This record gives sequence, C-alpha cells and structure tokens, in this order.
Amino acid sequence: GWARAVRGLLLDVSGVLYDSGADGGVPIAGSVEAVRRIKASGLKLRFCTNETQATRENFVKKLRGMGFDISVSEVTAPAPAACHILKERGLRPHLLVHDDLVPEFAEMDKTNPNCVVLGDAAENFTYANLNEAFRVLIGMEKPVLISLGRGRYYKETDGLKLDVGAYMKALEYACDVQAEVVGKPSKRFFESALAEMGVPPEQAIMIGDDIVNDVGGAQRCGMRALQVRTGKYRPSDENHPDVKPDAYVNNLAEAVDIILQHL
Amino acid sequence: GWARAVRGLLLDVSGVLYDSGADGGVPIAGSVEAVRRIKASGLKLRFCTNETQATRENFVKKLRGMGFDISVSEVTAPAPAACHILKERGLRPHLLVHDDLVPEFAEMDKTNPNCVVLGDAAENFTYANLNEAFRVLIGMEKPVLISLGRGRYYKETDGLKLDVGAYMKALEYACDVQAEVVGKPSKRFFESALAEMGVPPEQAIMIGDDIVNDVGGAQRCGMRALQVRTGKYRPSDENHPDVKPDAYVNNLAEAVDIILQHL
Repeated sequence: GWARAVRGLLLDVSGVLYDSGADGGVPIAGSVEAVRRIKASGLKLRFCTNETQATRENFVKKLRGMGFDISVSEVTAPAPAACHILKERGLRPHLLVHDDLVPEFAEMDKTNPNCVVLGDAAENFTYANLNEAFRVLIGMEKPVLISLGRGRYYKETDGLKLDVGAYMKALEYACDVQAEVVGKPSKRFFESALAEMGVPPEQAIMIGDDIVNDVGGAQRCGMRALQVRTGKYRPSDENHPDVKPDAYVNNLAEAVDIILQHL
Repeated sequence: GWARAVRGLLLDVSGVLYDSGADGGVPIAGSVEAVRRIKASGLKLRFCTNETQATRENFVKKLRGMGFDISVSEVTAPAPAACHILKERGLRPHLLVHDDLVPEFAEMDKTNPNCVVLGDAAENFTYANLNEAFRVLIGMEKPVLISLGRGRYYKETDGLKLDVGAYMKALEYACDVQAEVVGKPSKRFFESALAEMGVPPEQAIMIGDDIVNDVGGAQRCGMRALQVRTGKYRPSDENHPDVKPDAYVNNLAEAVDIILQHL
C-alpha cells in the first residue's frame, strides 16, 4: 500500500546517495542508477539535505563527480532557506558557520547584526567564536538564534564529531532562548521542498537514513517516509519509541524498484 | 528576624569579597574588614565558591594578596568535592578543565577513563577537546558526566564568556545524558560545607551575589540566605520568579554589621 499514488520523491543525500569518507565519499551501490531511473520515470524529484559544510554549488559538484545526475536547482538546503527567512524578517546575521558555507550568505547585510545564524562550523567552533556569537545574542533585547539543523553528532573518518545541535543547546542555555531550526526536521523546510516540486504532501514520499530528521519530520508534514538501511541507519532504529516509517527498504535502489512498479 | 540564632556563615567569594578584573581583582569596600570581624566574633565560617579556574592554593594566595584572612582549609570548592565523588564511586576521570585546575586531580587515576569531569576550561574549550570529551562519553554504556557548576556565563574585563553550564548542555544533548552537578547550587555541596563547619542548616546563613546558585541553593538546604547588591547582582534579581532571599544587603560589610548586632 505505501507505494501507491506517488507523484514526487524527496531524497536525503548523505547516507542515501553516498557515504562520506576520507576523499569526499563513495556512491552507495545502485544509487546513481536509481536517481537516473527516477528522472526517466517522470516523477518529480528534490534532494533534501541538511548539509551546511559547503555551498550547494560545491556540494552538487562533488555529487556529479561521483556520477549523480543532480543540479543546484534541485537541492533544498538549510542555508538558502535561512536566507529566505532573514530577508523576510529584515534580519542581519552574525554567522557562525563553516568557511565554505559563507558564500551562500553573500547577499545578506551583515553590518550591526540582529541575529545569529549557527551552522556546523567545525573548526570554526573555537572558544573565541562561541563567545563572540554569545555576546551578539545576549546584547539583544530579544535574542534571535537561527540554527541550520539540530543534529547531535556525526561520524567522520577520524571519529565522531559534535554536530550543530550541541552548540545550539549551549547558546540556548546561556541566553535562555529557543533557537529556530531551519532544515530537517522543521515543517517549513519540508513544505518548501514540496512547494518547489509542486506536489502535495499526500502524493510525496521522503526517503532518508535518519529516523527522526528524515522520517519523523516528513511524516509530520503529511508525507509518507521510508527509512533506508544504509548510512546512519542502525537496527535499533526499528524500535524507535516515537517514529515508525511507512516502510523499510535495504537501499535507495530497492525503494525505486518498488515505487516504479506501482506507477 | 532573619539575623537571629546564627552560629555559622557561608560566604561566596567572587562578587562578595572581591570583583575580578584585569590584574586579578580588587576587594569590595569593607569586605576585608568584615571577614576579620566574623572571625573575631567566634562565628564559624566557610568560603563556598564555584571557582574552577585555579587550585584552592592559588585562589587563596590571590585573596591573601588582597588582604583577606583566608586559608585553604576554610574553602569549599567543586574540584575537591568532585575528587571525593570519584574516589567514592571508583571513577577514573577524563578531564576537560582549566590547566590551572589540573593539580587538584593529581591523585586520581586517569587511565582508561570511565567518566568526564567538566570545569570552566576557558581556552581549553577547543573544538578538538570538546569532540574528545564527547567521544569518551558516547563510548560508555552509560555515560557519566560530572560538571563543576552549571553557570551560564560570567563577565571578564574583555567581555562576557560562556561558562561551564553551556558546555555541559552541549554534551548532555549530544549524549542524551544528564550531568551530575558538583558545586553550588547542588544540595550535597552546601551540606558538605555545613558538615565542615559543624553547624546545622537552621543556624547558618549563606551570603552571595547569585540569586539562583547562592541564595536558591542554600535555601533549598534549609539555610537562610542573603543577596548582596555587589558582584553580579542586578536590580531585576529582586523580581526573580522562583527565589526570594531572606534579606537584601548592600554588601558583605552591612550583612556582618547586622548579624553581629544580633549575637
């Protein structure tokens, strides 16, 4: 039943299309071909990622280098979504983000900042930079903290790393404020991706490896959602107390097989 | 009524005895003399501090340099309290603390750590050190995080700094664990100070500048507590939603005047 009446697919990228590694990453078996088959089928498609360590341009370049048929205009990512919010509300950001993400904010006025935008800043998460972002926030009458995601940690080849969510919690506590999260699992983020596809939630399926941010987030928007058994998937996810995917699939290729059979 | 039947005083140090500044700090007017008068009166006395940027030895040395009559044996501080807990439970700490605090843990076995002790590490709060502490925690079946205080931020001459509580929240979130807080406002910490004085809570008064950590914490142990209008005191503290001191005093000297009159 879960594969009926589909008009659009949202694909998470890391852990679904490829696994990140020392030299940028390797495609997951069958995923390059699966993306091609989705496009050939006439289904609408968005790549829906929480990536904030690179501009979409560089992110897409890396994926094309692995053989994926993907272009910048097909990617929904937190930084452009944040820019949209900043413009809408007349906010001037103080950025605490990865150096490689800064160009996404090129058009934003950053003088006399009246909010902080927090991304996975990695090596930029220094004591000095955290204190500086804190001072900007605590100096405001009503601090505005915009966080590009709320991940707890992720794995790189040299070990586990604290993700943006941990630093978000530090600043939230210090300033007694609640961050506004842009990116998965925020409802608004999924709704943007759906609007860009022109597909209503009941005709869309999200495919991801993250039980909370991909599956839970998409389901709360009225979409169906599949969890792949690749990337950060762990068997214990199948006993998650709050979130139950519409189906499990071994990988993206298997999901696409089933969906295309039902078209 | 608040000054009746007193046998012992607990004094917070920073903001009550002295204000920290560029060259270590300056005594608050009347405080050097007030400490002398307490000692001459026969009242029991403990200095009860959350200081974790120096060993007690160096902390006391600094205060003696300002003219205070204080010795190491009169100080209740988080690091020795943490050592007590570590010994009691057979814990081997991974330390993320200020370099100058490390000697307090000289006797602890730090091989193959089975807990993390977090202090105000200041410049040691690097991206690499935070990831390392995180990996130690996430590698445990049941992560044990001991935090030397839960302060949000403090002021130094070059600006506001995130305090240990912010980093505690980051690690708590990333590991889905709750830290055990040693130091004010923990009940056990105040109880140790009372035991060291040999005075029951109903005969003791805490004097501090922090409405939550000094006043609220002491009152929860059954003590009376005064807030001084020095240090980090702010007029808005007098409208705190949860905590109401037994009295406000302009400074330590005024508190001691009133208490000694009632002896």
